[in-house]
Amino acid sequence: MKYLQLIILFIALGFSFQTVAQQSNIVEDYKPSSVNQPGKKYPQVNSEGRVRVSISAPEANLVQLDIGGVKYDLIKDEKGVWTGESAPQDEGFHYYQLNIDGASVPDPGTKYFYGAGRWGSGIEIPAVDQDFYAIKKVSHGSVSEKIYFSEITSAWRRCFVYTPPGYEENQDEHYPVLYLQHGSFEDETGWSAQGKANLILDNLIAEKKASPMIIVMDNGYAFVPVNNETKETGRNWNNAFEDVLIKEVIPMIDSTYRTKTDKNNRAIAGLSMGANQTMRIIMNNLDRFAYYGGFSGTSNYPSSDEIDVETFLDGKFKDGATLNKQINVFWLGMGTKEPEPFPGSIGAFRNMLEKVGLDYEYYESTGTAHEWLTWRRSLHQFAQLIFPD
Amino acid sequence: MKYLQLIILFIALGFSFQTVAQQSNIVEDYKPSSVNQPGKKYPQVNSEGRVRVSISAPEANLVQLDIGGVKYDLIKDEKGVWTGESAPQDEGFHYYQLNIDGASVPDPGTKYFYGAGRWGSGIEIPAVDQDFYAIKKVSHGSVSEKIYFSEITSAWRRCFVYTPPGYEENQDEHYPVLYLQHGSFEDETGWSAQGKANLILDNLIAEKKASPMIIVMDNGYAFVPVNNETKETGRNWNNAFEDVLIKEVIPMIDSTYRTKTDKNNRAIAGLSMGANQTMRIIMNNLDRFAYYGGFSGTSNYPSSDEIDVETFLDGKFKDGATLNKQINVFWLGMGTKEPEPFPGSIGAFRNMLEKVGLDYEYYESTGTAHEWLTWRRSLHQFAQLIFPD
Repeated sequence: MKYLQLIILFIALGFSFQTVAQQSNIVEDYKPSSVNQPGKKYPQVNSEGRVRVSISAPEANLVQLDIGGVKYDLIKDEKGVWTGESAPQDEGFHYYQLNIDGASVPDPGTKYFYGAGRWGSGIEIPAVDQDFYAIKKVSHGSVSEKIYFSEITSAWRRCFVYTPPGYEENQDEHYPVLYLQHGSFEDETGWSAQGKANLILDNLIAEKKASPMIIVMDNGYAFVPVNNETKETGRNWNNAFEDVLIKEVIPMIDSTYRTKTDKNNRAIAGLSMGANQTMRIIMNNLDRFAYYGGFSGTSNYPSSDEIDVETFLDGKFKDGATLNKQINVFWLGMGTKEPEPFPGSIGAFRNMLEKVGLDYEYYESTGTAHEWLTWRRSLHQFAQLIFPD
Repeated sequence: MKYLQLIILFIALGFSFQTVAQQSNIVEDYKPSSVNQPGKKYPQVNSEGRVRVSISAPEANLVQLDIGGVKYDLIKDEKGVWTGESAPQDEGFHYYQLNIDGASVPDPGTKYFYGAGRWGSGIEIPAVDQDFYAIKKVSHGSVSEKIYFSEITSAWRRCFVYTPPGYEENQDEHYPVLYLQHGSFEDETGWSAQGKANLILDNLIAEKKASPMIIVMDNGYAFVPVNNETKETGRNWNNAFEDVLIKEVIPMIDSTYRTKTDKNNRAIAGLSMGANQTMRIIMNNLDRFAYYGGFSGTSNYPSSDEIDVETFLDGKFKDGATLNKQINVFWLGMGTKEPEPFPGSIGAFRNMLEKVGLDYEYYESTGTAHEWLTWRRSLHQFAQLIFPD
């Protein structure tokens, strides 16, 4: 008995020593993040995925790194420079900010990205599979900013349009189109900046794993100003965005670019809120789209309850056999580390699909949460399945 | 005598009272800046051109607004929110930052722009002539991001390409090209973000005041890595950028886009450092370009000394009569409030042009300094003179 207790004690001590040792023996192989501003040494990332920030603030009382929902106190040196690091972060892209005496501000070391409802700092933790979105010596498409006046919303709006390598040169070629949407508190810039949609497609097209396609990335927030309540509460955003997309964006794209305009050459996908929105849109427009990608989201969000197929989306999922003929690929994906309600609501949705016999693809991104590496990987998978030659 | 002294005293007092009154009676018609992030109330601008910022920093000791080379102390309210305003600023776009207990950071209220060597805050003071760069219900071109690998610099580089309204639809049309460069501590994003080059051209083309043209905006910093000294000192940047432009960018643009490739359909212009660089480039490549625009800069910068035409740029300006046949438009412009050395060096350059008899256009932007409204106006003027039908 005594021996066993001692062994347990040793094991317990060993573990706690190991934990302490890990905290204090940080691996000193930090490198500047790949999304730093030109010439900026900080922030840095080490091989454990820790983020180290550093900022001069000689008169400050408290400076913190705010990342992944945790605030880490920095330490001030004799020159007034505050430095410190986070616990290891998941692979991929994360938003973060600094907190200087209570002021939440972007880190002046990074480039800025729109997410979490603001333009702010981002950091890139190198991922084991980062090669699929790396910039390589292959032919590159281009991403164009297209501004347009939306009569439906009485507002100037903007989309970004990826045209694949060869688009400009091959004047007789027509291309299929993927409409690709961002998530909540994000905007039309997300997919081509932190999403790397252009590089993912450039690489897939170079490897002949995806068909050359146009990708249209618009803004999922669309408010109709006549109904002031709508604008303030955002309650009817689904309807307004669907109208803008169907009545304004698609006609504009089809009249501006050399597109293939039949449903077998049009796909729609989105992440999180965008998955929810685009699922409603394809189900209302099965004559217009033949491919659907839902990345970390479904239209029953945030409920994890069993879905009543008779009433859900006006019964649009009732007839799985007919939908299998109308939809070429119905794709769902999520990260293994996503928090509720995502696993619950996506799980409930899959149960419904299985009940009605709707064929679908399901993908899990290993070790990622409700963040951009999940969605880069989802696009990488989904893009290989749409528009077969 | 006594009366006169009294009158002088009254006048003096009157003036100083007036000054104090102006400082305390700030015109309370502040509106959020047009380049704020979506939904952000601050920063704001009033009709005097003052900038008011506001940020929550409950634990801070000192928060300042740093704009136009002056730091303004903000005042803290009982909730820990710091607010304050600047003196009136010139019309147009300005870079600025906040200073929180010694940390120089972007204002979380604004969108971010690359200038002054960093991505940071910008503000827009409405200008009397802002209509020429306003977004209007006219046909809009688009701005594309084009990434390319430069063999000369062994690096990935990027340019932005404006294609005019109708470019995508009119597949048989070919277009003239303007190569348009940013200034020092800026990059290839400047002309289409804070420069509003796309909107300026959209509006001019709609009014038939400019020919539809392609505009290529590249990065003026180009270092050849074999020569380490070059990279560190930046001494030979002119040569490296000229090589990249002539040998890599122009061939890429001409093989990708539907361009007119003769010299009468190619213009080159730049601002500040870009004016200096592009002047050297056109003088070395008179077979390739027929139009030059120098906005707030010349190649004798920063000298205000009389130019020796025999030695300046290897004597390329010696023969004004021949140059008048080779160059269709030689255009110079600057703001009336630009500090030295700009007026001095541009003045010395103009003296040389007059001496050699080179015909040139000269424009002054009223009430603007070495800033973007000067350059928006310069582009607006210059674009009307190039590529006549």
